[in-house]
Amino acid sequence: MADKYVYSFGSGQAEGNAKMKELLGGKGANLAEMTNLGLPVPPGFTISTEMCNEYFESGGKLPDSLIQEVKKAMRQVERIMGRKFGDKKNPLLVSVRSGARQSMPGMMDTVLNVGLSTETLPGLIEMTGGDERFAYDAYRRLIMMYADVVMEKAAGIEPERDDLAVRARLEDLMDGIKEAKGYATDRELTAEDLKILSMQFKATVRGVLGQRFPDDPWEQLWGGIRAVFQSWIGKRAVSYRNIEGIPHNWGTAVNVQTMVFGNLDDDSATGVAFTRDPSTGENVFYGEWLRNAQGEDVVAGIRTPNALNLASKREGSNDHLASLEEEMSELYDELSGFRTRLETHYRDMQDLEFTIERGRLWMLQTRVGKRNGVAAVRMAVDMVNEKMISREEALLRIKPSQLDELLHPMLDPAAEREAWKLAKGLPAGPGGAVGRIVLDSDKAKRWAEQGRKVILVRTETSPEDVDGMKAAEGILTSRGGMTSHAALVARGWGKCCIAGASDLKIDYRERSVTTALGTTLNEGDWISLNGSTGIVYQGQLAVMAADPEKMDEYNELMSWADEIRRLGIRTNADNPNDAAQARRFGAKGIGLCRTEHMFFGEERIRSMRAMILAKTEEERVASLKRLLPFQREDFYQIMKAMSPFPVNIRLVDPPLHEFLPDENDPEAVQEVADEMEVDAGKLSSRIHELRELNPMLGHRGCRLGITIPAVTEMQARAILEATAKLTLEGVEVHPEIMVPLVGNYLEFENQRDIIMKTAEQVKKSTGCSELHFKVGTMIEVPRAAITADEIAPIAQFFSFGTNDLTQMGCGFSRDDSATFLPHYLEAGIYQDDPFQSIDQKGVGQLVRIAVEKGRAANKDLHLGICGEHGGDPASIEFFDEVGLDYVSCSPFRVPIARLAAAQSTLRHNGGPKPVEDAPKAGTAAKKAAPAKKTAAKKPAARKTTANPRTKKS
Amino acid sequence: MADKYVYSFGSGQAEGNAKMKELLGGKGANLAEMTNLGLPVPPGFTISTEMCNEYFESGGKLPDSLIQEVKKAMRQVERIMGRKFGDKKNPLLVSVRSGARQSMPGMMDTVLNVGLSTETLPGLIEMTGGDERFAYDAYRRLIMMYADVVMEKAAGIEPERDDLAVRARLEDLMDGIKEAKGYATDRELTAEDLKILSMQFKATVRGVLGQRFPDDPWEQLWGGIRAVFQSWIGKRAVSYRNIEGIPHNWGTAVNVQTMVFGNLDDDSATGVAFTRDPSTGENVFYGEWLRNAQGEDVVAGIRTPNALNLASKREGSNDHLASLEEEMSELYDELSGFRTRLETHYRDMQDLEFTIERGRLWMLQTRVGKRNGVAAVRMAVDMVNEKMISREEALLRIKPSQLDELLHPMLDPAAEREAWKLAKGLPAGPGGAVGRIVLDSDKAKRWAEQGRKVILVRTETSPEDVDGMKAAEGILTSRGGMTSHAALVARGWGKCCIAGASDLKIDYRERSVTTALGTTLNEGDWISLNGSTGIVYQGQLAVMAADPEKMDEYNELMSWADEIRRLGIRTNADNPNDAAQARRFGAKGIGLCRTEHMFFGEERIRSMRAMILAKTEEERVASLKRLLPFQREDFYQIMKAMSPFPVNIRLVDPPLHEFLPDENDPEAVQEVADEMEVDAGKLSSRIHELRELNPMLGHRGCRLGITIPAVTEMQARAILEATAKLTLEGVEVHPEIMVPLVGNYLEFENQRDIIMKTAEQVKKSTGCSELHFKVGTMIEVPRAAITADEIAPIAQFFSFGTNDLTQMGCGFSRDDSATFLPHYLEAGIYQDDPFQSIDQKGVGQLVRIAVEKGRAANKDLHLGICGEHGGDPASIEFFDEVGLDYVSCSPFRVPIARLAAAQSTLRHNGGPKPVEDAPKAGTAAKKAAPAKKTAAKKPAARKTTANPRTKKS
Repeated sequence: MADKYVYSFGSGQAEGNAKMKELLGGKGANLAEMTNLGLPVPPGFTISTEMCNEYFESGGKLPDSLIQEVKKAMRQVERIMGRKFGDKKNPLLVSVRSGARQSMPGMMDTVLNVGLSTETLPGLIEMTGGDERFAYDAYRRLIMMYADVVMEKAAGIEPERDDLAVRARLEDLMDGIKEAKGYATDRELTAEDLKILSMQFKATVRGVLGQRFPDDPWEQLWGGIRAVFQSWIGKRAVSYRNIEGIPHNWGTAVNVQTMVFGNLDDDSATGVAFTRDPSTGENVFYGEWLRNAQGEDVVAGIRTPNALNLASKREGSNDHLASLEEEMSELYDELSGFRTRLETHYRDMQDLEFTIERGRLWMLQTRVGKRNGVAAVRMAVDMVNEKMISREEALLRIKPSQLDELLHPMLDPAAEREAWKLAKGLPAGPGGAVGRIVLDSDKAKRWAEQGRKVILVRTETSPEDVDGMKAAEGILTSRGGMTSHAALVARGWGKCCIAGASDLKIDYRERSVTTALGTTLNEGDWISLNGSTGIVYQGQLAVMAADPEKMDEYNELMSWADEIRRLGIRTNADNPNDAAQARRFGAKGIGLCRTEHMFFGEERIRSMRAMILAKTEEERVASLKRLLPFQREDFYQIMKAMSPFPVNIRLVDPPLHEFLPDENDPEAVQEVADEMEVDAGKLSSRIHELRELNPMLGHRGCRLGITIPAVTEMQARAILEATAKLTLEGVEVHPEIMVPLVGNYLEFENQRDIIMKTAEQVKKSTGCSELHFKVGTMIEVPRAAITADEIAPIAQFFSFGTNDLTQMGCGFSRDDSATFLPHYLEAGIYQDDPFQSIDQKGVGQLVRIAVEKGRAANKDLHLGICGEHGGDPASIEFFDEVGLDYVSCSPFRVPIARLAAAQSTLRHNGGPKPVEDAPKAGTAAKKAAPAKKTAAKKPAARKTTANPRTKKS
Repeated sequence: MADKYVYSFGSGQAEGNAKMKELLGGKGANLAEMTNLGLPVPPGFTISTEMCNEYFESGGKLPDSLIQEVKKAMRQVERIMGRKFGDKKNPLLVSVRSGARQSMPGMMDTVLNVGLSTETLPGLIEMTGGDERFAYDAYRRLIMMYADVVMEKAAGIEPERDDLAVRARLEDLMDGIKEAKGYATDRELTAEDLKILSMQFKATVRGVLGQRFPDDPWEQLWGGIRAVFQSWIGKRAVSYRNIEGIPHNWGTAVNVQTMVFGNLDDDSATGVAFTRDPSTGENVFYGEWLRNAQGEDVVAGIRTPNALNLASKREGSNDHLASLEEEMSELYDELSGFRTRLETHYRDMQDLEFTIERGRLWMLQTRVGKRNGVAAVRMAVDMVNEKMISREEALLRIKPSQLDELLHPMLDPAAEREAWKLAKGLPAGPGGAVGRIVLDSDKAKRWAEQGRKVILVRTETSPEDVDGMKAAEGILTSRGGMTSHAALVARGWGKCCIAGASDLKIDYRERSVTTALGTTLNEGDWISLNGSTGIVYQGQLAVMAADPEKMDEYNELMSWADEIRRLGIRTNADNPNDAAQARRFGAKGIGLCRTEHMFFGEERIRSMRAMILAKTEEERVASLKRLLPFQREDFYQIMKAMSPFPVNIRLVDPPLHEFLPDENDPEAVQEVADEMEVDAGKLSSRIHELRELNPMLGHRGCRLGITIPAVTEMQARAILEATAKLTLEGVEVHPEIMVPLVGNYLEFENQRDIIMKTAEQVKKSTGCSELHFKVGTMIEVPRAAITADEIAPIAQFFSFGTNDLTQMGCGFSRDDSATFLPHYLEAGIYQDDPFQSIDQKGVGQLVRIAVEKGRAANKDLHLGICGEHGGDPASIEFFDEVGLDYVSCSPFRVPIARLAAAQSTLRHNGGPKPVEDAPKAGTAAKKAAPAKKTAAKKPAARKTTANPRTKKS
């Protein structure tokens, strides 16, 4: 039991402040803060989150002490407003709203106009100068809301069908009158209509729910408070918290606040505003308003809201409507003053709600405003230049994932809101893509060459699909996870991809795709992909382009990140183009160069297959010899492109059958047999021999190099001969040769010996006596992590292959996990997809064990990570914390990794907390305030010159 | 550098003793010990193993100090023998033999007759009374052996082809003379022939190897010593040590010993003897001898050796030949006295070698004798009853694997020696089996019903083959490892099985099996399997039956084991028959009852399939309801059969597609579709949907129960209703419900909640308010081991699933590992197959972590292991050491586990070391000796009465 549950605010004084979000929720804390700042906030009080928890603990009771506190707080509101709750003459009406520590938009319930009853109605009519229509409209709204939220939902009554819910029945009544009278909108309803409706509403509520709508204001209030608490454990709210990872024991506060009406007359209005433009980040006041309207009208989208000022006008949309600045310039100036005060105070862009009641401005809400990636970067950098915040704060303000919006073309969010969703899969490759459905790789290539935009849609992809994937705008698969072939390749290229959209049935014979709801699309039909959310849309959505390097603010922000971060950032790339792209994005080296993709060129795959099919050691060596020059050239080019930074090359990893056609595809087998001049039957039986039940745990990785040492020797030779050539040409290169899938130090020793022996031979044959290279291993088998102390003394580096470490550590096949992993995430068994964000408690522990054991056994051990987790901010923070030297990720994740690494340094060095978590209120903020005010004005002025749309600053 | 490298022995005094095996090797230590015991050992000296290591460190030099020591030791031998090394008149000849700490039979080299030269030959002829033939035979043997071992092998000369080796050329010469003169055997060669041969030999050696055979006895000696050292690093020796796990730095000793000749005349002889019968264990003196012969003649098998005594005579073999006892009774009595002294002294059955030279008995070797399982048990128990050894020593003397010979029928070892080997696979199910090749399960069943004995031969087996497997005498697969389906099922039934014989090509169309050497066998041909060694033989070998429970000594030994062991022993069984079998073998509970096998009966598989194919939740629940009574009855029977011991039941584990036909088998799909009354196309596409790339890491285990909770509920209900029924019937049962494949405590919590809720319902519905059961989980996912501290507080038990823990921990698919694991074992990357014996350093560490974290979080946690390792002695010792409560293994491994557990207790409690490792020599042995002598005689006398074949005791 707490001593105090109720915190009053009003008339320049509040018991709470912005720091008290845990207790008062975000809304309540900010209402208190605004009150303290002297802003005109309708008075009210906040019931703390502690009460919410006690409410549930006590089985749903409001304790006496609370009732006393509420009554006392209400008296204070009454004093300030000069009205009285439940008074016949001069009634006070209040709203009852939820307010959790973290915003849960639309997930909880609200009751407005509480206090209206048969007794107080006449008083309201009198107060509004006889506006019966207004009063009865308010009354019917109260009944409707109360019946729905308090009497039905909070009471746990579940109607059998949606159309039997009380709200639906009341709406039916209203629709009935409108139809009978030929009204198009609610606004045409007369006072008389609304009066009749109120009566009908009350009768229906009694009939449907078996109880009366309470005519006692206090009863309404207690019911409203209870309903807000109940809505904390409503289905929607619970599943929202599960998804967002919000603890269920946080509870919600309840805000009871004097009602102010923007719809009282034409001197009334309501609006929302942002202290800067949330879509561009520009330092202009931005907002929308509606005369004679309630808040919900602005958001609902039925009426097009007016622009707040010139800067908010948008061509072809609201530029014909008068702005607040034009219509009510004094009030606008007042609001504009609040804008500056609030932003300076909170030191971040604020999202404001205001209402004008009969010419008086009331502030209803302030909170940190949401913004897109571009705006986030621009604002953060501007605010540093305005000396409002420090560089560190700026860096911490950007969510690394927001950079995705700068790096990839995106679907237009407005178009997305209106488009038809076909399915949801995993957001495997970020950005947006629009194109025609094509079901095979060859056709995708062909169509693309004809200038058509295509989306390659397949159940899953394989290395044979690479050309089609390259040609496509985006890739959509019905199987596979975040690290499936499609996802890996797409991310490597920065290409939009949705994987594992398991509701889609792909019929290759019918050349069609069918959704869960039975919509069938044919090859050639348009679809659009949002690879950042995983949503597939029907049709051709608008796309917004991206080019971050042209944005000065982006470049500035990234340079700050680079100064601060401890972790090195490398990229995963296996060709010079990707390497160059990644360098542009700021990568300093390659952390993973996969060599198997290099075997897929025409002549190469032939030699590779000959090697696999070799009957004698001589044949095998001969085909490897044919591969050598290709490999050497590949390595030469990629190392040159990355010089002088290190290039980590992984020896061949996948099982051999991946280089052969599918045994169940006789045509493909025949084709390869013809090409290789071997008997198709024999080829088929060799493929069958190589087939594995669990290829993931089969004959791959260093197991290949150990059973066929000539493969390792050829690859080592190719790398080292390329190194020698570059070295002799004066190009500085630092190859790192990585042995994959080591589980036992003896495996590594075996492969290292071959490499070292080859190096001696290469030194002799090339005459390059100074070959600089390292030999190390991937740590991707749990046993390797556990026995890292045995491996470390003979290895120069470890690179954590967290994809496979997750597969083996959790026992999840990434290709098959789509059947259960989504269910696991929904049930909260894993908070995040462990293939997206490293499972710190499990797989992360294996990493930690390996780091500790490895470093203890070899203090010079260089440590990195090259799994897909290298581009995930939460994982990067974890890797920073366990002490890795670098992370490596796909080129398009490099900027994200740079930022995330800087944020990690800041957090671990006790740097400033992000403003979202702990706003700079109180002493520190006050002390800093004057300096900022001045600073804030300067750039605003600069912007004015730059942007003719901004009328005043 | 040691102070002393050479240890003399001879004439009742030796510088070494039996404890000095590390320094002197087994042979040298025992020669010293026999000398000290006063037995007639030809004098000589041993060069220590330290010298061997220094020899290699110095790059192959014999230091001066060694040369001086050898010369000094040789002088002592000369004094004892009254002969002189290199003397013309009275030459001393010596043998130069290897002798490592642990016997490495046939792996290293020996040179005999060292000291014979053109100068000493006449002396030898004179010493032998003018026996020129003997002397030249000895000479040509020396040249042949020396040229081969010292001049060619030790010098590292590798002839291009085997027939170009010097030994082959010398043999050609000898064959030439024999052919020319029409001799059938070497014995027909005359003195003149041998004289000529000696000359030819020397000339050929010079021609082939380019150097002379040394005529200087000392040069011969140094060469011989060097050759023995060199043979330590010979290919065969190195790979033998790799296989047997003998450290390469042990080195070998060299034994230089006076030559004594059993082939000098008819008063000379040679033989081998065992102090007890090594094949029955009976306490009788057993051996073989040959008059006028050398040791190798007894072993070579060209002449049938005579029996040592009546007890050694075997009907139809050597019973027509005179025994030593009959022919040289005085010498036999002397030998028989040595038998008693040696066995009493060593307190174990000894394997002796002796030679009689002109009526004088010499002892050449004593060592602990090898014995088969039956003999080992009998001897150990007899020796306890004779008060020769303690019960603890008896228990430690039996290798647990030797019990296999008592538990399974075995191929007759004599027949095996002569049979044609076809292939070698993994010894997946012990014992022997003989039958006709059958390539499919249905035919196997049909043929077996017709009374034919069959061996089911397949590339791999699946649950559909179970009937055929049951019907077959044995199972042979060309794929899969020690824990493949075939291996698991076979071991569960105690059936002979060889898995992964990858050299065999099975052609289902041609109905044939082809070996690596090209031998093709057809269906119906006879083969024989030795499932304990993995060898496949052609034809129909003799089989020896097994029935351990009729053997008193076995029962006695096992009762001692049970008194001593700390670990509980349970069995893996999923039907009442297996449970009963395991109880007979001593299991106290079931550690793993797999429930999926229970779904394969006709009506059951139908319902199971209906459940999988269900389109609605109702259909699914309906088909599960049909399965419920079957499951309940299964659990009822098995718990009843095991009452009052606990029965651990694992919830369904395999992926669902295992219950459906193979999608690539259209006939099977059609058949099931007809049966299920569904469309074959739809069935096929559902099967395709369920197909997984890595089923091992796919949708299985608790992932099924979490995505389809009704399955867990049905199984829990079946178990608990059966429990309630038995409880109400007064039968004491303790079911343990085990959730498989947990990796995250929330998975376990989810399943446990379903089980607990079901339990409440069952209590109500059955009226059985006291339901005793436990709920726990398998620890088989690495993540579960790492996060055991989170799981333990809510689990009542952990059972380690070390098969899957090995698969995931090492990243080895057990089904696919046959392609690389044999290579790994050969290369010494793993000492043992990690699926056979737990990988203590890697997977074992995961077990240890889980035990420590689990116990720390829940001190009442019950811990067991149910993987295949539960039946492996080395693994059992490990599990005992980490503190598990019990191990569970297949019924036929239960006795082995009981013994291994007892041995582990003895070893960890500092009990006596097994005699093989550290013989009881010195003070302790001497003190105990008198008592044992008396004791040893009594049972020997008893045996005399019991066995009329024993003439004297």
